[in-house]
Amino acid sequence: MKIPPVKGTRDFYPQDMARRNWIIDGWKRASIRNGFEEYDGPIFEYLKMYQIKSGDEIVEQLFTLKDRGGRDLAIRPEITPTLARMVNQQISSLPRPIKWFSVPRLCRAERPQKGRLREFFQWNIDIIGVDDVLADAEVIFCALDYLQDVGLTPADIVVKISSREMLAALLQDIGIAESQLDGLYAVLDKRSKLPDETFRQILAENVADEDKRKKILGLMSVRSIEQIGDFVQLAGRVKESVDKLNRLFELLGIMGVNSFCQFDIGIVRGLAYYTGIVFEIYDKGSELRAIGGGGRYDDLLKQFGGPPIPATGFGIGDCVLGILLEEKGLFQKQLSPRQRDYFVAFADEKFFKKAVEITARLRRAGMSANFDYKGGKLGKQIKLASDQNAKRCIIIGDEFKDMATGEQQLVDLDKFLSQLQS
Amino acid sequence: MKIPPVKGTRDFYPQDMARRNWIIDGWKRASIRNGFEEYDGPIFEYLKMYQIKSGDEIVEQLFTLKDRGGRDLAIRPEITPTLARMVNQQISSLPRPIKWFSVPRLCRAERPQKGRLREFFQWNIDIIGVDDVLADAEVIFCALDYLQDVGLTPADIVVKISSREMLAALLQDIGIAESQLDGLYAVLDKRSKLPDETFRQILAENVADEDKRKKILGLMSVRSIEQIGDFVQLAGRVKESVDKLNRLFELLGIMGVNSFCQFDIGIVRGLAYYTGIVFEIYDKGSELRAIGGGGRYDDLLKQFGGPPIPATGFGIGDCVLGILLEEKGLFQKQLSPRQRDYFVAFADEKFFKKAVEITARLRRAGMSANFDYKGGKLGKQIKLASDQNAKRCIIIGDEFKDMATGEQQLVDLDKFLSQLQS
Repeated sequence: MKIPPVKGTRDFYPQDMARRNWIIDGWKRASIRNGFEEYDGPIFEYLKMYQIKSGDEIVEQLFTLKDRGGRDLAIRPEITPTLARMVNQQISSLPRPIKWFSVPRLCRAERPQKGRLREFFQWNIDIIGVDDVLADAEVIFCALDYLQDVGLTPADIVVKISSREMLAALLQDIGIAESQLDGLYAVLDKRSKLPDETFRQILAENVADEDKRKKILGLMSVRSIEQIGDFVQLAGRVKESVDKLNRLFELLGIMGVNSFCQFDIGIVRGLAYYTGIVFEIYDKGSELRAIGGGGRYDDLLKQFGGPPIPATGFGIGDCVLGILLEEKGLFQKQLSPRQRDYFVAFADEKFFKKAVEITARLRRAGMSANFDYKGGKLGKQIKLASDQNAKRCIIIGDEFKDMATGEQQLVDLDKFLSQLQS
Repeated sequence: MKIPPVKGTRDFYPQDMARRNWIIDGWKRASIRNGFEEYDGPIFEYLKMYQIKSGDEIVEQLFTLKDRGGRDLAIRPEITPTLARMVNQQISSLPRPIKWFSVPRLCRAERPQKGRLREFFQWNIDIIGVDDVLADAEVIFCALDYLQDVGLTPADIVVKISSREMLAALLQDIGIAESQLDGLYAVLDKRSKLPDETFRQILAENVADEDKRKKILGLMSVRSIEQIGDFVQLAGRVKESVDKLNRLFELLGIMGVNSFCQFDIGIVRGLAYYTGIVFEIYDKGSELRAIGGGGRYDDLLKQFGGPPIPATGFGIGDCVLGILLEEKGLFQKQLSPRQRDYFVAFADEKFFKKAVEITARLRRAGMSANFDYKGGKLGKQIKLASDQNAKRCIIIGDEFKDMATGEQQLVDLDKFLSQLQS
């Protein structure tokens, strides 16, 4: 009986797994050198965890299940609620700032599309306990530290940055009620993904007043932070948030990554929980969905039953990133095939047990080693050594062959084994 | 609103995550040096995948869910069915033998107990395409290669080994019908876990004939491979399987791990799919459940719609292993706290931007570096450097301090930065 894999999931054959490991190991190294510590939570949580404040977009996309007691669970679609739960559980004993990262496997019951699967991996980093925009700059730097590591340049990618706080102040200046903001964010977030006509239609459904709609459209055409001042008076909350944005860009300059960054008032983020700086990372061709994104979420921990603590972070998935790395030839350029230290061949069947013994001893000494189960002709064994990318081939009974140079060398077996021991 | 984690799952705070990573990284290294390549599949599969031939024990323990089209899915409780599916999908293009490993996250809806959780990680290695008992020896060696690496000795653990093939032949010699075997395996597998009285009762429910029951109990009291010959005549299938067991122990001796291994006719394995050599790894105190186990499953790929291909492998979970490593003090002995390469302190607020710049440059140069968000008194920053286990502390404006020796050194900033560049 043949059963297919579930649609929207991936099988990772060794070659695919090598790519996945290369991406995730890079995420881990970048996180660690930027001062983050790794955490993880369970693959599922109580369903209500995701109903608290994740925005409708996410709740619709859950894979739900029940535990043995009939309680509703959901496979995690993002790790931020788990992070909030875990931090709140130990809030009094965790030294702050909390700089944590995770590389969770996540599932969303979406329609599979290019760069969007039902199961994926996502790099998350978060700084909890710092309200200074310096923390926002640091998370953006950390993302760019990794993206530069894998060979992406300002010619390939851009970080588009805005501020929810500023947008809220500007929209309220226009006369939008605070209660309307969350709905309007979701609309504005879709602007770049929809035809202009459709967007205007949806906007009209959310904002009845034509004058306000015109002002919103005017606002969304602003191209630089300076232009904000042309649009409204820089005072109160607007000025505060503009100052923060300016300081963020100054810090990104000091960190040496400003060539990757640009202000874009169109960056809103779909999720309801963002409160300050928001950003999304795109390929410059803009053919793909966002590579990742994040921002400040100062109210989330409180919503999960904890004290009010400022927080900021990002998520970068492996799907769009993988497509981009493939398109730019960056896997091929950087991911070399695995080499084995040794292949143990035997010239005669009588040396078979010796081959098994030497292979075992090489492995115990920490070296990778293989041998041919079937034995047989020496030429075939040496071909297998070469197929398996062995650096060296030991030929028992005869000689020692360096696969790279083709050079052969006679070695005394006992001496060789005693060297391994030490 | 405070929501607890789901019962039987674990939160991995950084300290727990360090232990999990240490275990899993060790599994990966041992697999690679033993010639295995990593693969992985999706976290869920169609439910019917697990209904094919996993034994009733597993099917009861599934977390089930539905996809958007209403099809039944289950979170994977083991990865072997996925392995069978993946291998069958590409059977004609995969070079054999297939030596693969995986470290999947698995879920089972069991009652949480010591060493048994609802979510865990399991090291799986499998050799597909080799019917020689040499492959069984190699998977046992690979497990022991890892277990020795983390510091376990023959005084701590034992691999108990038997053969399903031999047991089947012996039971059929006694007069048990082939159709009764699967049920009887499940009973015999429980023998060491049940009080003797309960075991005899369950056995009587499965084998009505008292004489046969006596013979089965006699068989289960056999203590060595040699004693099999006292019990029945070594001929036909019995002789064949006894010969294989003897050869397995000879190979384990050649590989240098026989001091860990012993024959134990009581090792049966609960799952229905085993066909040959079976084994389980226990702590010598026998206080804990099995650390892991495995065996040969020559019919499984065929049952999953592929050609008949011999296969053997094992699974070792992280829960019992973690308890044992903790009990033996092996985490504490071997898992050192993470060090950071640099901490960047600044003697005066005017050097703050320099500190941000230097930290960014150190990180881009591949070194781990942190600084104090708040700045403030130098003594406090240096204390933080020490708390964060920094190898070196750069003090901007003043001097360079080697945290290990307490030695300080004046360094020219431009020279230091240009050295980083190169």
